[in-house]
Amino acid sequence: MVDSTPAADGYDGDDAMVADVFARDCGSRRIVENLAGKWGLLALAALHEGSYRFNALRRRVDGVSEKMLAQTLQGLERDGLVLRDVQATIPPHVEYSLTPFGVRVAAKIVDLVELVQTEVNGTNASR
Amino acid sequence: MVDSTPAADGYDGDDAMVADVFARDCGSRRIVENLAGKWGLLALAALHEGSYRFNALRRRVDGVSEKMLAQTLQGLERDGLVLRDVQATIPPHVEYSLTPFGVRVAAKIVDLVELVQTEVNGTNASR
Repeated sequence: MVDSTPAADGYDGDDAMVADVFARDCGSRRIVENLAGKWGLLALAALHEGSYRFNALRRRVDGVSEKMLAQTLQGLERDGLVLRDVQATIPPHVEYSLTPFGVRVAAKIVDLVELVQTEVNGTNASR
Repeated sequence: MVDSTPAADGYDGDDAMVADVFARDCGSRRIVENLAGKWGLLALAALHEGSYRFNALRRRVDGVSEKMLAQTLQGLERDGLVLRDVQATIPPHVEYSLTPFGVRVAAKIVDLVELVQTEVNGTNASR
């Protein structure tokens, strides 16, 4: 939902409707909540490398359980970040990839992850 | 993880050690896990606007409980992202702000949040 900002002071026009991630009922808040969480961030960062089958993605995201990864991918698919492609082979081949919106979000997450990795490398280098 | 004891795989040189957020024992993974989670992301995005007292920050991050915000801030402080400044007034005045590393991380989170907000606005505009 796009909160009718700034509702707090009684303004109720709708031409100024903007998403506000800080507002608990905003649609953008729900998306950020779903992509947040360590598994959402890590799954998106992994899928930014390319598409993955479920088990390969599970190996890439070291430590995630099958159940948590499945839940995470379902949420990301629902929010339009991840595509689930089922090929009619025997057994079925299921591949996960990013939507165009997912690619843009994942690129930001990769930026963030690289910054943290660089900081950790620097901290260790200076010990 | 960049610690200099990669005993698990027996490798003991240290020139090739780089942080790997996908590895469950890496220091960068722990930091990403702590800043991830909806409250970590939202608290950092809020603190990117400026410093906040606890209760003001709690109002800004709509929906967070006192307990969850306190835990979140403790984790972010421990990881070197947030500073907790206690001024010796009566009652004590406690203010939270970002460290230089926190500013850089929060800027990436704000990028991410703005991308999601823009997408939600676009989706609503085209309805």
